[in-house]
Amino acid sequence: MGDGYHLADFGAYTVGGRMIDVAGRATREINFMPTASFTYDPNGTFAIEHLYVQYFVPASRNALPPVLLLHGGGLSGSTWETTPDGRPGWLHGLLRRGFEVHVVDNVERGRAGWCAIEGIWPDVPIQRSLQEAWTLFRFGRPGDFDARKPFPGQRFPTGALDTFARGFVPRWTSTGPAASAAFEALIDRFEQVTVICHSQGGQFAFEAAASRPGRISALCAIEPSGFTNTPEVLRGVPVLMVHGDFLDCDERWQQMNARWRAWVDALAGPDADDAVTTMSLPREGIRGNSHMVMMDDNSDVVLERVVEWLDGVRPR
Amino acid sequence: MGDGYHLADFGAYTVGGRMIDVAGRATREINFMPTASFTYDPNGTFAIEHLYVQYFVPASRNALPPVLLLHGGGLSGSTWETTPDGRPGWLHGLLRRGFEVHVVDNVERGRAGWCAIEGIWPDVPIQRSLQEAWTLFRFGRPGDFDARKPFPGQRFPTGALDTFARGFVPRWTSTGPAASAAFEALIDRFEQVTVICHSQGGQFAFEAAASRPGRISALCAIEPSGFTNTPEVLRGVPVLMVHGDFLDCDERWQQMNARWRAWVDALAGPDADDAVTTMSLPREGIRGNSHMVMMDDNSDVVLERVVEWLDGVRPR
Repeated sequence: MGDGYHLADFGAYTVGGRMIDVAGRATREINFMPTASFTYDPNGTFAIEHLYVQYFVPASRNALPPVLLLHGGGLSGSTWETTPDGRPGWLHGLLRRGFEVHVVDNVERGRAGWCAIEGIWPDVPIQRSLQEAWTLFRFGRPGDFDARKPFPGQRFPTGALDTFARGFVPRWTSTGPAASAAFEALIDRFEQVTVICHSQGGQFAFEAAASRPGRISALCAIEPSGFTNTPEVLRGVPVLMVHGDFLDCDERWQQMNARWRAWVDALAGPDADDAVTTMSLPREGIRGNSHMVMMDDNSDVVLERVVEWLDGVRPR
Repeated sequence: MGDGYHLADFGAYTVGGRMIDVAGRATREINFMPTASFTYDPNGTFAIEHLYVQYFVPASRNALPPVLLLHGGGLSGSTWETTPDGRPGWLHGLLRRGFEVHVVDNVERGRAGWCAIEGIWPDVPIQRSLQEAWTLFRFGRPGDFDARKPFPGQRFPTGALDTFARGFVPRWTSTGPAASAAFEALIDRFEQVTVICHSQGGQFAFEAAASRPGRISALCAIEPSGFTNTPEVLRGVPVLMVHGDFLDCDERWQQMNARWRAWVDALAGPDADDAVTTMSLPREGIRGNSHMVMMDDNSDVVLERVVEWLDGVRPR
């Protein structure tokens, strides 16, 4: 699409969640604008725990099922848009390749909103610092954060770290079941769908693949941090696990890497075939990728590999 | 665009805000996924008070400046997308008419994220109930909420009230100055820009028009709830104030209506011309509009009036 993006349609919708009724709480005076004070009544009916989806349908669609893009923890659907250093994201790359794409803002993230009513969710939200992102996303050593000196060969655009951080959103630790339920409700809207998920999104994608047999025609998990309890429930679903470089940088990632391998092995089972595979980017000679593969400077190269895999496992 | 939407480009960016450094707070153990527990450190550097923008550039642009769409309080940029009952929103209508459109998620709303760190913002967030929306947005009488019986002739799709409520996001009452600053930083990215704002967005749009003379070529305020202290500072900026029906339904709206009229009269001054005007939809024979004009069933009719006005005040 050197001449831009020709869309047959685009738009947004929300899925899942529940209504809660709040009663017996005290009203209070709100004076938030010089001209618009009013009595705030915290009682009533509130919509919570839905997710938000923005969808794009290219005018020339390929023959593969629509793609759901499910972001990781502390992030929103903006993960897949323009990269922090201003390049087109995977959303753009998928549209350019003729995929219909649905970008999710998960429960309590981004445009899905969140529940500000005390006592509904038991925990307090957490927020990611730049320092945590620096180490958790494998940009560089903790001691090199202040100097913004990344790992040698780092492909994440660490010069745009501040911009990346403006894409962080707070998160609760108690809303996993609600997020799973909403994502399953989303899956139910499709006959067949492809899921590309990242990090925390893996949890919800794998659970939905297990509980909605036959719906997810292919599942690409970019460095998933959550899984189903038993891999066997996913047999029959083509799964691709993609991971980047620098996994030896700390113990957490060494453990996660071992877990990915063990999980894929268990999922493949005795009749392993190519439909369940781990794509280790460094093992394929693609070095320098962080946890944020879809933002790294070779994001298009990795997406091309993912699309080749999708094409190989397409429903026929 | 019966054949869809041909875009030269689209994408997203963030603007404004600040970095804060948090120190001296206790870490705690987080165990939010079976496979991904870690020690949460609430200290470090955090990006807050920026806004998020998603932009769309049609392949065939008209000659008018880009349009910024600025939503109201307790809402996000999804205000301008698909309506709750599934029709194309003003975003779609503007693209179809050849406008470049930038959709804002204001500070602490939607994909702009918010600050979960205690003590940074002084107040607690508030959240809008369906009951509050029912009366505040002039859908019907308070006593008719349970039966979902709207005002006679109501144009808001009240059958989709639950869907609309899934677009609500919590809000703080203390972040106005931060939102103004971020919106001004956004304006600074454009040589000339058109602003269409709604409700609370009026406050930030009017303030930016006053502080950035010459940048805002036209300002269309849909039922604004905030203004500049002195209307005179906006002289020279073409302003259109649009309001819907049912303004006699309660005292708040009667007062707001009087305020709009007084403010426009003061802005027009002794040399009033057509560049400053109030478009009362019922006075023009367009009856039944709620506060959510861009979602009402005649939203396209109203948009067409707005575009006619924009075309009339275009820079020449």
